[in-house]
Amino acid sequence: MIEKEEQSKKENMQFISEIRVRFNETDALGIVWHGNYIKYFEDGREAFCRENQISYLDVQKNGLATPIIKSVCEHKLPLKYGDVAKIETTYIDSAAAKMIFRYRVFNDKNELVCIGETIQVFTTLEGELQLNIPDFILDWKRKKGLF
Amino acid sequence: MIEKEEQSKKENMQFISEIRVRFNETDALGIVWHGNYIKYFEDGREAFCRENQISYLDVQKNGLATPIIKSVCEHKLPLKYGDVAKIETTYIDSAAAKMIFRYRVFNDKNELVCIGETIQVFTTLEGELQLNIPDFILDWKRKKGLF
Amino acid sequence: MIEKEEQSKKENMQFISEIRVRFNETDALGIVWHGNYIKYFEDGREAFCRENQISYLDVQKNGLATPIIKSVCEHKLPLKYGDVAKIETTYIDSAAAKMIFRYRVFNDKNELVCIGETIQVFTTLEGELQLNIPDFILDWKRKKGLF
Amino acid sequence: MIEKEEQSKKENMQFISEIRVRFNETDALGIVWHGNYIKYFEDGREAFCRENQISYLDVQKNGLATPIIKSVCEHKLPLKYGDVAKIETTYIDSAAAKMIFRYRVFNDKNELVCIGETIQVFTTLEGELQLNIPDFILDWKRKKGLF
Repeated sequence: MIEKEEQSKKENMQFISEIRVRFNETDALGIVWHGNYIKYFEDGREAFCRENQISYLDVQKNGLATPIIKSVCEHKLPLKYGDVAKIETTYIDSAAAKMIFRYRVFNDKNELVCIGETIQVFTTLEGELQLNIPDFILDWKRKKGLF
Repeated sequence: MIEKEEQSKKENMQFISEIRVRFNETDALGIVWHGNYIKYFEDGREAFCRENQISYLDVQKNGLATPIIKSVCEHKLPLKYGDVAKIETTYIDSAAAKMIFRYRVFNDKNELVCIGETIQVFTTLEGELQLNIPDFILDWKRKKGLF
Repeated sequence: MIEKEEQSKKENMQFISEIRVRFNETDALGIVWHGNYIKYFEDGREAFCRENQISYLDVQKNGLATPIIKSVCEHKLPLKYGDVAKIETTYIDSAAAKMIFRYRVFNDKNELVCIGETIQVFTTLEGELQLNIPDFILDWKRKKGLF
Repeated sequence: MIEKEEQSKKENMQFISEIRVRFNETDALGIVWHGNYIKYFEDGREAFCRENQISYLDVQKNGLATPIIKSVCEHKLPLKYGDVAKIETTYIDSAAAKMIFRYRVFNDKNELVCIGETIQVFTTLEGELQLNIPDFILDWKRKKGLF
């Protein structure tokens, strides 16, 4: 029972989106240049956040920005031009004034291509760090059953 | 005599800068992806403009921006990873409230790789089009002997 | 009658695709950096070409590549982060061994944002220029009623 | 005595290069988009590797590639358009068939902007993983006094 709840809670915190590899994202090795996965993570994260009304644009309406302070990206398999990949974005809850996301990218054979994590903080639009979680994020977390 | 003057006037309006092709600028054909030449043009243009104190940052200090309204790029030869290329940027004088630049990119054998042109207008930082040439540009044109 | 035929012929040569502006495509002016429209053109062109089985991957299966030899891009209005834009890609028939495409990008109010054109040639995968239209393209043109 | 040796050994494994922030590397927050630091790391790494004759092109001459399997990037301060930054790249020796580099990016006030790490493996040009350190790298390590 509890396990089921945990499972559904986790799914609640996940979003699957899709990207099609652009030719201009490949490099002379014939595969997606490694730095472009940071774009795919942003695609996945913003897809999750649009769904949850906490996207960059929503954050901005609240007078804030959420700059990235850390990115990690681990590559398992290459992607090539024309591949259609799935990005699974998972929100990792944290008590700190941070947004943590984990990513898993799968190719069209459902093989794991890449995993990653990003950490964001909250700042004013002038760049001043916010030490407390903003109210609109607290509201969202409450709605999601996170506390 | 006049020819010599014309020649020196032209050189006066030219700047040569250098770029080294980044691996992440190549594509799966093993050559620089065509859209990246627009970056090289911007590199060349800003090198000219820094030299002439009319760079994006100088323009911004005057409360203005100079968005591109047209770019043309013609490719003659490919560039590859590791190539060091020369960008020759030439300011083309115009009576209109526009900035026109022409570009020629050469590889390290001095072969012509690419030619191009960009046209910029003047806007406020809020994006309002300026119909007259701004004073600081008029001053610069005067200094350069353009009228 | 003939007009209607001309109209349907034109539609036959057109494809509409959609892009969502990525945050990483914006610049410090808060708008899409002008060079990124070349990516949108490639998105539109490849969407057309996938639909018509003449995409980069199809061309490659025929032992060929279709490098861009000219791009033109004219900007009418800016796009911003989060905008969803429509790209209308039109194939312009030519008797030469070239692929010519025109592009019109519209914002979500259906305002014209940008127009453009690209010209491609056919080369072997080693980069040797092909002076004749390849057979698989001739076949495709025949099927489309272009001659 | 030993400390001095250790210090000089470390410097021996370091290279400082410089980048100038391109306008097209900024985003709508007016700062360098976080994913572009992966390009700066590649700039720094390749500057180190050119100096040491183990660049992508040297590796390729040996029939190999060195794809990235992990990148980490931590942001301390933003960079803005026009900033000239220093990239300090340090080779971290490893007994495994891997290339590990650490990066520190400094702004022109010498403040730490960003730190990072990348890990590369050796593969054939067809992508087959090499479990042993290639001979040309062993030779280079010997020359550098690494074993």
